[in-house]
Amino acid sequence: MDGRGPNAVTLEEVARRAGVSPSTVSRILNGTARVRESKRQAVEQAIADLDYRPNVMAQGLARGSSMSVGVITQDIASPFYNESLKGIEDSLAGAGSGYAPLFVSGHWKKEKEAECLSLLAARRVDGLVVLTGVVDDATLLDHATRMPLVITGRNLQGPNVVSIHADNEQAGFDATQHLIELGHTRIAHISGPEGNLDAQARLAGYRRALKEANLPVEERLIATGDFHETGGLLAVNQLLETRLNFTALFVANDQMAYGARLVLYRKGIRVPEDVSIIGFDDLPASLYSTPPLTTVRQPAYDLGKMAGDAILRLIHGQKVSIPTIPLQVIVRESTMRRRGT
Amino acid sequence: MDGRGPNAVTLEEVARRAGVSPSTVSRILNGTARVRESKRQAVEQAIADLDYRPNVMAQGLARGSSMSVGVITQDIASPFYNESLKGIEDSLAGAGSGYAPLFVSGHWKKEKEAECLSLLAARRVDGLVVLTGVVDDATLLDHATRMPLVITGRNLQGPNVVSIHADNEQAGFDATQHLIELGHTRIAHISGPEGNLDAQARLAGYRRALKEANLPVEERLIATGDFHETGGLLAVNQLLETRLNFTALFVANDQMAYGARLVLYRKGIRVPEDVSIIGFDDLPASLYSTPPLTTVRQPAYDLGKMAGDAILRLIHGQKVSIPTIPLQVIVRESTMRRRGT
Repeated sequence: MDGRGPNAVTLEEVARRAGVSPSTVSRILNGTARVRESKRQAVEQAIADLDYRPNVMAQGLARGSSMSVGVITQDIASPFYNESLKGIEDSLAGAGSGYAPLFVSGHWKKEKEAECLSLLAARRVDGLVVLTGVVDDATLLDHATRMPLVITGRNLQGPNVVSIHADNEQAGFDATQHLIELGHTRIAHISGPEGNLDAQARLAGYRRALKEANLPVEERLIATGDFHETGGLLAVNQLLETRLNFTALFVANDQMAYGARLVLYRKGIRVPEDVSIIGFDDLPASLYSTPPLTTVRQPAYDLGKMAGDAILRLIHGQKVSIPTIPLQVIVRESTMRRRGT
Repeated sequence: MDGRGPNAVTLEEVARRAGVSPSTVSRILNGTARVRESKRQAVEQAIADLDYRPNVMAQGLARGSSMSVGVITQDIASPFYNESLKGIEDSLAGAGSGYAPLFVSGHWKKEKEAECLSLLAARRVDGLVVLTGVVDDATLLDHATRMPLVITGRNLQGPNVVSIHADNEQAGFDATQHLIELGHTRIAHISGPEGNLDAQARLAGYRRALKEANLPVEERLIATGDFHETGGLLAVNQLLETRLNFTALFVANDQMAYGARLVLYRKGIRVPEDVSIIGFDDLPASLYSTPPLTTVRQPAYDLGKMAGDAILRLIHGQKVSIPTIPLQVIVRESTMRRRGT
């Protein structure tokens, strides 16, 4: 193995044919610097004429790098995480870094996620980004001893590790507070899965907001969902079955809010006239639900960009510091002032 | 470079420690065969004890393979294509093939897509799956001379190539026919982008259905969108501005249908009482729109599974034959009989 292209055309031959230096060819191939357009064209022509294909893997191995960043997402079909994937992708491409993302999914399973980590390590990725993993901290820190790691959704401290996390408790507080300010006093909550840290924080914020407003926390007005549409559907049915009155609903993510909204539509309960709904995430589809959903914006795309930028900096041995991400209530049309107030 | 793990522990040492043969270790690592649970545990323990990490890339290079399948999607945040990505992922994992997918996005741009193809070729993927690419046939066929290729959304013939495509013309006909059967005679259409083959086929099906029912094709009732929500929003505004009467709307994909639906909601035009809407794709969210959207099911996940299975067969030198995929109208609540008929 000598790092040559598959048809044994070398970078030097490309450079000679294009009339430029080998380093110029290299810079064009890696996208690491801007090059005059005429030079770029000459090099591209030479590459085409000679049918040259650089062997990135061989080049990477030669210098102990695969020029890849491993990205573990939970679900390759999740509308939320895919906004983050797009952010990561744009960050790596936009920086002209030459690094490509390698996406795998953990499917919210501890063992599957550990398997993904090993798979990526075996493929010699140069860094890891884990989007809200469920694997334990110790496993992550162990991987971080061998390569840089960026993790979202939890606060993990360690050398070679950057955490990107948002203040979910405060955001849960703000969402509930938005409903309280609209005059609602009977506010139900559909929470996320019990083991999930984000879900716990949002629930804690909900409790704190009620408490600070001197409103009672009615446990039967709290139903647990699974962060998917069907979970929201089942949870709102459970809330309606209590026959307890509520005029507002804070749902711990938008996907569950869609499910809840469908049940209300079927039962002829109007949103927002009869029940105000606030979601969480601000998925692209929330702008197009009827009515458009009031929600808490999680800047999924920006989080992805931050994660991409952070892993590149770590790979290059640079320092990174990231503040806790503030979240913001986006008021649309699914919430309104409680009638008679 | 000798294909050894990073800490120079060899597969043979793992086998010795676990008390199994090296080929058993290899089979466990590649997932190519079922192994007794006790053996698996012994091997996993030995791997942990020795901190062994197989260098998949080095192993792959040694036998001219990277154990990766390159997948070009158009948009890593597209709800439609991501169902297909999930299908591809499950196919590769489910077959215990040892192959991992490498996802990159072409962003619907010819040059970007050609770049992706080169990037993947340089990373020595063992096969390529292109989801509805926009790059020209010649470029694809050229890549197919060097590695197996599976392409969806177009009918491309060649050695080493498998096409997976659905009958979009017939599906466009069926969608329009569904509205005609409900008594609608003034049926508008929001089509996809002009250069898009699927969009053209769906529009052709719409025209044929009207013609066969002896209904006039009113060109001003055809508006062009971009396959995104905003495109549907703008297109339905354009249709409403013609002041031409229509009681039904066939939209060339679900995302545009969401945008169109929001405009009607804002204008107080009821769905389906005033206007029936049928979409195309059957995205997961269409089940939760209000009302749930009647649409044409594109089995995006199944298409992905088929593509994954096909590329594995091609990589292993096996024959593949795939019939044209039939599409099916899924009747939900956004379409109803025209009033007075």
